[in-house]
Amino acid sequence: MKSLVLERKDELSLRDFPIDKDEAVLGPRDVRIKLHTVGICGSDVHYYTHGRIGPFVVNEPMILGHEASGTVIETGSDVTTLKAGDRVCMEPGIPDPNSKATRLGMYNVDPAVRFWATPPVHGILRPTCVHPEAFTFKLPDNVSFAEAAMVEPLAVGVHAATKAKIKPGDIAVVLGAGPIGLVTALSALAGGCARVYVTDLAEKKLEIAESLSPAIVGVDAGKESLVDRIKADTDSWGCDVVFEATGSPKAAAKVFEPLAPGGCVVMIGGQSEPIAYDAGAAMIREARVENIFRYAHVFPRCVAMLSSGTIDVKPLITRTFDFAESVRAFEIAASAPAGDVKMQIELPQ
Amino acid sequence: MKSLVLERKDELSLRDFPIDKDEAVLGPRDVRIKLHTVGICGSDVHYYTHGRIGPFVVNEPMILGHEASGTVIETGSDVTTLKAGDRVCMEPGIPDPNSKATRLGMYNVDPAVRFWATPPVHGILRPTCVHPEAFTFKLPDNVSFAEAAMVEPLAVGVHAATKAKIKPGDIAVVLGAGPIGLVTALSALAGGCARVYVTDLAEKKLEIAESLSPAIVGVDAGKESLVDRIKADTDSWGCDVVFEATGSPKAAAKVFEPLAPGGCVVMIGGQSEPIAYDAGAAMIREARVENIFRYAHVFPRCVAMLSSGTIDVKPLITRTFDFAESVRAFEIAASAPAGDVKMQIELPQ
Amino acid sequence: MKSLVLERKDELSLRDFPIDKDEAVLGPRDVRIKLHTVGICGSDVHYYTHGRIGPFVVNEPMILGHEASGTVIETGSDVTTLKAGDRVCMEPGIPDPNSKATRLGMYNVDPAVRFWATPPVHGILRPTCVHPEAFTFKLPDNVSFAEAAMVEPLAVGVHAATKAKIKPGDIAVVLGAGPIGLVTALSALAGGCARVYVTDLAEKKLEIAESLSPAIVGVDAGKESLVDRIKADTDSWGCDVVFEATGSPKAAAKVFEPLAPGGCVVMIGGQSEPIAYDAGAAMIREARVENIFRYAHVFPRCVAMLSSGTIDVKPLITRTFDFAESVRAFEIAASAPAGDVKMQIELPQ
Amino acid sequence: MKSLVLERKDELSLRDFPIDKDEAVLGPRDVRIKLHTVGICGSDVHYYTHGRIGPFVVNEPMILGHEASGTVIETGSDVTTLKAGDRVCMEPGIPDPNSKATRLGMYNVDPAVRFWATPPVHGILRPTCVHPEAFTFKLPDNVSFAEAAMVEPLAVGVHAATKAKIKPGDIAVVLGAGPIGLVTALSALAGGCARVYVTDLAEKKLEIAESLSPAIVGVDAGKESLVDRIKADTDSWGCDVVFEATGSPKAAAKVFEPLAPGGCVVMIGGQSEPIAYDAGAAMIREARVENIFRYAHVFPRCVAMLSSGTIDVKPLITRTFDFAESVRAFEIAASAPAGDVKMQIELPQ
Repeated sequence: MKSLVLERKDELSLRDFPIDKDEAVLGPRDVRIKLHTVGICGSDVHYYTHGRIGPFVVNEPMILGHEASGTVIETGSDVTTLKAGDRVCMEPGIPDPNSKATRLGMYNVDPAVRFWATPPVHGILRPTCVHPEAFTFKLPDNVSFAEAAMVEPLAVGVHAATKAKIKPGDIAVVLGAGPIGLVTALSALAGGCARVYVTDLAEKKLEIAESLSPAIVGVDAGKESLVDRIKADTDSWGCDVVFEATGSPKAAAKVFEPLAPGGCVVMIGGQSEPIAYDAGAAMIREARVENIFRYAHVFPRCVAMLSSGTIDVKPLITRTFDFAESVRAFEIAASAPAGDVKMQIELPQ
Repeated sequence: MKSLVLERKDELSLRDFPIDKDEAVLGPRDVRIKLHTVGICGSDVHYYTHGRIGPFVVNEPMILGHEASGTVIETGSDVTTLKAGDRVCMEPGIPDPNSKATRLGMYNVDPAVRFWATPPVHGILRPTCVHPEAFTFKLPDNVSFAEAAMVEPLAVGVHAATKAKIKPGDIAVVLGAGPIGLVTALSALAGGCARVYVTDLAEKKLEIAESLSPAIVGVDAGKESLVDRIKADTDSWGCDVVFEATGSPKAAAKVFEPLAPGGCVVMIGGQSEPIAYDAGAAMIREARVENIFRYAHVFPRCVAMLSSGTIDVKPLITRTFDFAESVRAFEIAASAPAGDVKMQIELPQ
Repeated sequence: MKSLVLERKDELSLRDFPIDKDEAVLGPRDVRIKLHTVGICGSDVHYYTHGRIGPFVVNEPMILGHEASGTVIETGSDVTTLKAGDRVCMEPGIPDPNSKATRLGMYNVDPAVRFWATPPVHGILRPTCVHPEAFTFKLPDNVSFAEAAMVEPLAVGVHAATKAKIKPGDIAVVLGAGPIGLVTALSALAGGCARVYVTDLAEKKLEIAESLSPAIVGVDAGKESLVDRIKADTDSWGCDVVFEATGSPKAAAKVFEPLAPGGCVVMIGGQSEPIAYDAGAAMIREARVENIFRYAHVFPRCVAMLSSGTIDVKPLITRTFDFAESVRAFEIAASAPAGDVKMQIELPQ
Repeated sequence: MKSLVLERKDELSLRDFPIDKDEAVLGPRDVRIKLHTVGICGSDVHYYTHGRIGPFVVNEPMILGHEASGTVIETGSDVTTLKAGDRVCMEPGIPDPNSKATRLGMYNVDPAVRFWATPPVHGILRPTCVHPEAFTFKLPDNVSFAEAAMVEPLAVGVHAATKAKIKPGDIAVVLGAGPIGLVTALSALAGGCARVYVTDLAEKKLEIAESLSPAIVGVDAGKESLVDRIKADTDSWGCDVVFEATGSPKAAAKVFEPLAPGGCVVMIGGQSEPIAYDAGAAMIREARVENIFRYAHVFPRCVAMLSSGTIDVKPLITRTFDFAESVRAFEIAASAPAGDVKMQIELPQ
């Protein structure tokens, strides 16, 4: 069977790729997984269209994909929590279990992390993969493969909501209604917010945001002042949390304006250059700023919330492709269609 | 118009009571409120049936009731956030704004707090009351007087959930399915839990609990081992939070058994005697124990969650009486009917 | 007796000033204090040399001074913790006790705060003042008036150290060896740090810093790379906390460089313009940034630490003037002599 | 060379023991260490005099000792931070690096931890041992082997102080002036407390406590009411933290009495039976209770504090024995001489 290979910038092919040989031997605490569903992430598309993300450059052909679910087909000798036949989702970054960061519980900031589809590590748009038991999570019967492949982007939102230390009844603002903005809004609500304001310039995205929950309020940043709206709705106090999920320097420069005294800003969106930080506005509120990097420890939490219904990601999955169509799927994804949130690819079973 | 007066243990009467005169003068930061709906709390019933709660003894006739909503009818000269006609709910405890506890943000543990229907302070089963603006909260149009009168008991659950520092996706256990157990379960879910197990010995109460959300799981403590259930459902890891809401020494003695390493126990239920504390079980998990007293700062949060729909208390309001029937309402409440959670009394408007 | 009045930018006079009449009546929870020692703060000097600080403009003659100690000479009818003859120090900002920020425990960010020597509020380089009991703190016998007048600047450092949530054994960096940098270094050590690196460009200031404790290490930022030094001393891990106490945009732009994964940056120094914030560097470390504004709740803590000896501010008091020399004292302070940290003025008793 | 072997309850011998063969092969991330100094812990003595501690029973001859320092003599192939000749101290518990507890940063509560001198794991009163690099910490030149062998007990105090989340200027109480009580007092001071009250019934122990710092105040619990003293010294507010370090049920039953509103109790002392927990007293203060188990992540912090001088443990080392005298050393330790805090054994080099 074939893999989806990014040969170089702008060139994808579905072809045999010899990675399976590298993974012929299963470690004692590893499992072998047959892939089922893989979501297309903005970073996958960016490698396709730009050939790099910051310092990570595609110098050799690389298999794409890191948002995945599948079925365990083989287990290492010391594996105790999984068995063949288990439906699972997988965390794409594997740290050094003996590093200082990992030991401290912050494995996501371990510089030794090997992350799927980040050069030189291959992704999982391929038939099977080998993965550590510790980063492979069993799915309950009521969580589908499609939902499970959404756990990876959802994890970013849940990690952001965790870092925010939301108190029940908080009012939050999410800047940006892209896929990460939307999972952040859902996570903020599931994490205790009474109401989440989502801003964007694209009307269609705000419609999707509002359709997710009656507690989500879209604010068209091109037509309405977010700050005025928040002040009007909070007796001029401000919101408790601002999640920056645009990656836009312009948006990031204004994160403190709608914030209440003692409030928290969570920086999620990546920035290629230093941004303007209004220290005066931050100080007068004694704002706390949390800067996050991917996620840690939240995959099983996401699975539990999907299973119990406290988060529903199904409305975010707007298109599904067969694996045979995956090159076309990436072409469509690269065109960024306005009505789509998440596209997924199903592998043959 | 009349007030509901507890003349002494076992004797209630609906009669004129001269308290309004004491409140003839409105302070500059006070409002006058016409009461609309008042819930019957277990403590009201306990004063009725026992004449005391611990050191608080009913030595003089006292008006009952502290779970209340109403309408502002007059405002003090410095009031800025409320006006006549505003529909509101009220926090029943008023601290000294200049005490050290209040200044530190913990006004609920200020010994100077004056709390409705706690001798010698009168409650609000009466036509009107005077209350500080700072503890009176405006209701949005979509929150009814009945829901608003539920904010007081809900606040206990929301405060408990806040103190627990729930992380999104936590698994919680609530010991006890009485009114406080149920609002705690709702608060734990709204506050980020993926799933909440509620235990009780009364089957009917567990049915009510499970009817509130698909993410609430009832466990009949007389028929099933809670610890076994939690271990089975969490790969033997345990739950993240245990809320003790029974007030039973027997239940309180076992709070650590289902708890995961690093987990949190929140003690909500009052205990008249020291309880047995399994320090060894607490230590081996490095458990954190939070002990709560009423609530602080959560009324506006509760209102916001009722308004946005992230918490729904309507199913908990199982019976409503006219004020004229309020003595009978207390007699029924004192009989503790199995199918009732919260009874409320509506005052004439 | 006279007051030190800033008549306008660049013009000070020691003259009678009619403020005492405004304070003729003592509120029930107020005390009247005879001033003893007042420190000269950079902000006092800045009003003298510039006539304004940001939006605060000296439009009317204003008495300077806000770092003060003295003796209670009269108490209001409801005062319980102080009596005439008590030696005290005073917190210079008085919030509205009924504001939302105050009720939440964050009175320092209450916009209604009235702060000494901040237009239009007068300072306390005058014979007596009236102050709330709640913000007046009794001194133990072993804390001198001079030390007590250091509590105000020290409070900034202690508040910063508190917000940092230092863990015992943390390694900290303080950017800037001015008076605030030095009290921050002392506070960081007293608050749990094993070692504090202090950077500056002025050799003399670094000498003073190092003289305060063997656990303080001076780094001459003009001669040595701070980042290299920290990496060398921490096995490349980084420091746990960075305190920005320069107010320099250039220093503030590099706060994340020496920081360890999961570390904290505390922004203390005011900035008149937005600063450059390296979001990428912040994210890859999952840095937490705390932005502080003055202090809250720390005056009694400072007094306790001075009394027990866990902090010693005496070496920071480098010159003392008689009140009669106070104009000259300000002239000297305005020249920013290299060897001075804190100058104080003693009022006649 | 010989090892100190607990043959069975009450019987020690210094003899050849074949453990070195088991450690002939060095793992890639292990180091081999020549032991230098080993402290005698109460648990070592308890195994000697009772043959067990709770569920841990000495069924086979076992080498004692777990408070140790030494010199690296060989390093595994992947070791990067240590080299032969490095002076080190060692953390005695080794967790499974792949367990869930370890990954979450709580390796001390991992049930798989293997801990020196806890049956069936041997201790290190022997010539050499093999240990993971990750739990072996290099000593600066100014930290002696004797001080380094104090890091293990000190770590308990530092972990307790960390869990307490001390704020600079807190007032603490330590119940119990045994070795753990004393290191807790030193840790509480180093961690930010302004003053630490230490209680005990033994006058000699209180003298030692007070000799450690002018900020430590001894309270003879047999002669003076701790609660009265704390109330008198804190304007009736109470202390911020209570550390329970006696292991006595009687002391543990009263932990809330001296505590301020919002204060924290840290349970350090082990208890063989459930203790009496005054839930009412805990609730009315909204007390937080932290229950600790050994320590995690604090060894390098302790080394840093010893090196910078922020903690001095030298006064606690009251006697040192040659290894040849180690059986006698244990006999003396078993007699619990009043004037001794910590006895140590030096191995031949």
